[in-house]
Amino acid sequence: MWVQRTLTLPASRRGFHLMTSRIVDAMPEIGSIQTGMMQVFIQHTSASLTINENADPDVRTDFETAMNHVVPESLPYVHTLEGPDDMPAHVKASMMGASVQIPIGGGRLKLGTWQGIYLCEHRDRGGARRVVVTLMGE
Amino acid sequence: MWVQRTLTLPASRRGFHLMTSRIVDAMPEIGSIQTGMMQVFIQHTSASLTINENADPDVRTDFETAMNHVVPESLPYVHTLEGPDDMPAHVKASMMGASVQIPIGGGRLKLGTWQGIYLCEHRDRGGARRVVVTLMGE
Amino acid sequence: MWVQRTLTLPASRRGFHLMTSRIVDAMPEIGSIQTGMMQVFIQHTSASLTINENADPDVRTDFETAMNHVVPESLPYVHTLEGPDDMPAHVKASMMGASVQIPIGGGRLKLGTWQGIYLCEHRDRGGARRVVVTLMGE
Repeated sequence: MWVQRTLTLPASRRGFHLMTSRIVDAMPEIGSIQTGMMQVFIQHTSASLTINENADPDVRTDFETAMNHVVPESLPYVHTLEGPDDMPAHVKASMMGASVQIPIGGGRLKLGTWQGIYLCEHRDRGGARRVVVTLMGE
Repeated sequence: MWVQRTLTLPASRRGFHLMTSRIVDAMPEIGSIQTGMMQVFIQHTSASLTINENADPDVRTDFETAMNHVVPESLPYVHTLEGPDDMPAHVKASMMGASVQIPIGGGRLKLGTWQGIYLCEHRDRGGARRVVVTLMGE
Repeated sequence: MWVQRTLTLPASRRGFHLMTSRIVDAMPEIGSIQTGMMQVFIQHTSASLTINENADPDVRTDFETAMNHVVPESLPYVHTLEGPDDMPAHVKASMMGASVQIPIGGGRLKLGTWQGIYLCEHRDRGGARRVVVTLMGE
């Protein structure tokens, strides 16, 4: 069984944002998969996806602090035409990754208790973001 | 063909630890897959999984040195209730990733000669860690 | 439907290199998959794969600048036998990742307009690199 759907996530401010419910709600077929996998793939290069803590919003705030420290805007970049936030956004996107793959078992995502799916918006004004969600399994 | 099993990895000290044999030994069905994929997914947000060098233990020591440099405990984090190692652990976990996907061919994982699966324990006292292993293929 | 093929990417200089066409051209079966997935997996631990901007070569130059800043060669590494570029190469490889997974829809990779597959060569003289490409789908 294969299901694939493209979703548009509305524009988010720069930072890290929980998207689990929005994605799960769009994919009711998860419930009919006994064993399988869900992939979420973002079709952009300055926003990304990751899995992390789903409870305390401070964690998402601190992610932004940490990633700005790890990939500073002040490095001697050549690609600067789109603003100082652009090139760090590309690097952060590759560090976090363009996709997440989550196992499905018994009709549910097998996320741990504290895990959620983050949209990582690395641009100051990134606009809406498209993700392709693919389910596979039996 | 789909197989899925949840394994518990015993508590490991903070650092990077080879887990290839433990995982492969728990999944004998790999041997009956001609072409396929294995995913290992960790159900935690302050430990992670990656693939790296399987021979020299110094590499795992240096991984810990490097990741502590990349994501320092001294940043102005807001989420500090669980100790200074907690928030860096979340960030490191997203940098390494919550899952690895390894192709299967001819009944074997198609890892390179020097590749192994690391459990990355980012907490000082992380406890046991659960991973969901999923095989798919034909 | 499962297809798997091992490709050899010729030696590349240290840095980030677009490999999309080379990989797609080697996998004509993509065209006959209505819904599916392509994985590219690199069998090495000091080179890696990621998805990022496919247009401006300056982005690839700046990736090298940024990653050299993030994982300096000057840290107090223990594993130094293979040269100062070796241990940082391992760490960068895990940050970028050993594989990319790209959805397939309607016989085409569902990459965004600006997305391409990068080979990330983290060694000064890395040599040729082997990747295992796996297609699955229906």
